Amino acid sequence: MQIARIIEISKFKDQEVTIQGWLYNKRSSGKLRFLQIRDGSGTIQAVVFKGDVSDPVFQVCDELTQESSVVVSGIVAADKRSSLGFELQVRDIQIQQIAKEYPISPKEHGTAFLMDHRHLWLRSSKQHTILKVRHALIRASRDFFDGQGFTLVDAPIFTPAACEGTTTLFETDYFGEKAYLTQSGQLYMEAAAMAVGKAYCFGPTFRAEKSKTRRHLTEFWMIEPEVAYMDLDGDMDLAENFVAFIVQRVLESCQEELKVLERDITILEKIKTPFPRISYDEAVKIIHDKGLEFEYGNDFGAPDETAISENFDTPILVHRYPAAIKAFYMKKDPADQTKALCVDMLAPEGVGEIIGGGQREDDLDVLLAGIKKHNLPVEAFNWYLDLRKYGSVPHSGFGLGIERTVGWITGITHVRETIPFPRMMQRLTP
Amino acid sequence: MQIARIIEISKFKDQEVTIQGWLYNKRSSGKLRFLQIRDGSGTIQAVVFKGDVSDPVFQVCDELTQESSVVVSGIVAADKRSSLGFELQVRDIQIQQIAKEYPISPKEHGTAFLMDHRHLWLRSSKQHTILKVRHALIRASRDFFDGQGFTLVDAPIFTPAACEGTTTLFETDYFGEKAYLTQSGQLYMEAAAMAVGKAYCFGPTFRAEKSKTRRHLTEFWMIEPEVAYMDLDGDMDLAENFVAFIVQRVLESCQEELKVLERDITILEKIKTPFPRISYDEAVKIIHDKGLEFEYGNDFGAPDETAISENFDTPILVHRYPAAIKAFYMKKDPADQTKALCVDMLAPEGVGEIIGGGQREDDLDVLLAGIKKHNLPVEAFNWYLDLRKYGSVPHSGFGLGIERTVGWITGITHVRETIPFPRMMQRLTP
Repeated sequence: MQIARIIEISKFKDQEVTIQGWLYNKRSSGKLRFLQIRDGSGTIQAVVFKGDVSDPVFQVCDELTQESSVVVSGIVAADKRSSLGFELQVRDIQIQQIAKEYPISPKEHGTAFLMDHRHLWLRSSKQHTILKVRHALIRASRDFFDGQGFTLVDAPIFTPAACEGTTTLFETDYFGEKAYLTQSGQLYMEAAAMAVGKAYCFGPTFRAEKSKTRRHLTEFWMIEPEVAYMDLDGDMDLAENFVAFIVQRVLESCQEELKVLERDITILEKIKTPFPRISYDEAVKIIHDKGLEFEYGNDFGAPDETAISENFDTPILVHRYPAAIKAFYMKKDPADQTKALCVDMLAPEGVGEIIGGGQREDDLDVLLAGIKKHNLPVEAFNWYLDLRKYGSVPHSGFGLGIERTVGWITGITHVRETIPFPRMMQRLTP
Repeated sequence: MQIARIIEISKFKDQEVTIQGWLYNKRSSGKLRFLQIRDGSGTIQAVVFKGDVSDPVFQVCDELTQESSVVVSGIVAADKRSSLGFELQVRDIQIQQIAKEYPISPKEHGTAFLMDHRHLWLRSSKQHTILKVRHALIRASRDFFDGQGFTLVDAPIFTPAACEGTTTLFETDYFGEKAYLTQSGQLYMEAAAMAVGKAYCFGPTFRAEKSKTRRHLTEFWMIEPEVAYMDLDGDMDLAENFVAFIVQRVLESCQEELKVLERDITILEKIKTPFPRISYDEAVKIIHDKGLEFEYGNDFGAPDETAISENFDTPILVHRYPAAIKAFYMKKDPADQTKALCVDMLAPEGVGEIIGGGQREDDLDVLLAGIKKHNLPVEAFNWYLDLRKYGSVPHSGFGLGIERTVGWITGITHVRETIPFPRMMQRLTP
């Protein structure tokens, strides 16, 4: 018999098919048993009428526990009451396994309990719906850069030197040497951009930050484009086009998922380019106008970002932060040497920074002076300095954090639910 | 003026455009200068005729060194002699930077020298062509699984327990605990398959092996599908369809690249399903029939794999290895309990194993006995054992190593050239 996945059930109208799945829920009414069967692609109501099946099959319905694995055969019948549009009129049920008492019941559980059972919690409708949006978003991200002529150039995870201090780096013994887990593929993408013109990497990055906020993971995924001959304005164009594209794609391809997550999509539908571009100075003025305390020259904290972004319906691009609080590789603004040609994208609804990037310093002597000023070991950067000796060009790029972006688009406020197996300061299992 | 990328140059026939790139090579002949300009998307010959440009522009041609960054404007003219089909009749040249003497010249360099200059070596035609094939192959891999209804479920990199001994694991301090870098996402994909039916992960994996062969990297990328309700035969179907698909896609989308790499594509064109399926026992017979020494019951070494696979034009599927040499989670063959329901795919031309996988043990008691027999810490596997308590189903999957597969398809024999920044036992830089 034809094995059908629930997501494709409409292809099998009035045919007999077999569904391989698990019992999600059930109820009974006289000679009827209603089984909610999930197979990972969707959920269907399987209706068992006593007259349609053998006695043992009817009896088995009462033995089925939540998450028991079952193979159910029946006729696909149109049903206007169901959101799927179809139900299954059962003819046979084969039990794979009667599940032991399932730890996750419809009752409320604490977060720690659910996180301890993340391997099972993923089966819950909301959790695997978030994963499907994550998948769609990652796919859209790759499609965007692939469609614009970028070459994927995977950055290494093991890096040899602690470029910006070791306090937030994870360290490992590498055959007697010390190696560190990457915090960003940027420096490697700069080398790649000089080879392929437009490069991007996409992979996990690591920060050993002792932060327990809803925005922090120790292991998170970033997509990082880098383009030769692109300046800060081009970088901001690329960033806003990219984010508008992935939002649009998720709106198109994840309508059902966003419904399950009860996301207000009217908010997402407003995400159109151009996004507002404001300078650091203008952003500080917004904060001060709201009567908040903020010392000019500092970086923005989460409450500051919220205060700035709540003035806008779309993400905003905040550019030209004070150079003093930015990394050594940022190019300074020729019009004001105290400012860096950098940009952060802040998402609305209190989500905060989802993109950080900017134009890189392309002058050998200025870059070398910056490395020395930051007390960084020059020899570790010799290869990076080579990029300024052999055909240096203006170039820019950015990194987008996948988890914060998934959180924003799905309306999930804590990043721990936006990645299948989150790793946080106090969470290394399962 | 219109900025053009060389890959799209045919769109600009007879128009004046600007190319932003680097000097790859040059030669001169009387009143003509021929500049090979690369921009990362391709290479074009820019022809400078003394009468067409100002004197300083003509003179600058003689100052240009290899890898100098230049912005060249001119008319796109059809040219049948060039493989691109077009050349640029130069009107103006602006120099970004005259490069210092470039370390990589057309003369032969040793591998260690080239690997030390990997950040520059990537600019060489062959090297970035390999990267483009790698990109195409990764894209095809994702398209295959996305097209078959799989959900991407990223596996974690940090894992809490040393599941199969610590000798080949990289370890890090995780806020006072020990964490290990993942060797495979499989166990997590098993949990994911129970949630979404068909799951895959794609990311870097790590092995601290003290191997210096052409097949080994300490950091390599794997794509790992896992499917609920799929047995070993289904797993072999999936593996062969997947590999045939990505070979076909690379043949279609990388014709130019395979030409640059001088790959004999007639070999790749023979890669059609079904692939031969032979048992371990049959494979051993092939080895013995060739008069090679091999002790029945052992795992195959590289020379054994070559001996087996050279009998075939396509990859082959070798199944049912002795259970004793396979991991604890492999399901045993009901027809012969000494064998595991596992499969390796061996690629032809001496490439060897590119896929390893099989059907997983789904019985709680058998799995638990296996964990104990292998002297593994049961408590570390409690979450994994949960998958056999709550709706256990037959399930299977595999992992394909990206670098070996890129090596096979491009005809590059050493994996170090199939990843942008290779990490090997004695290579952690640049």
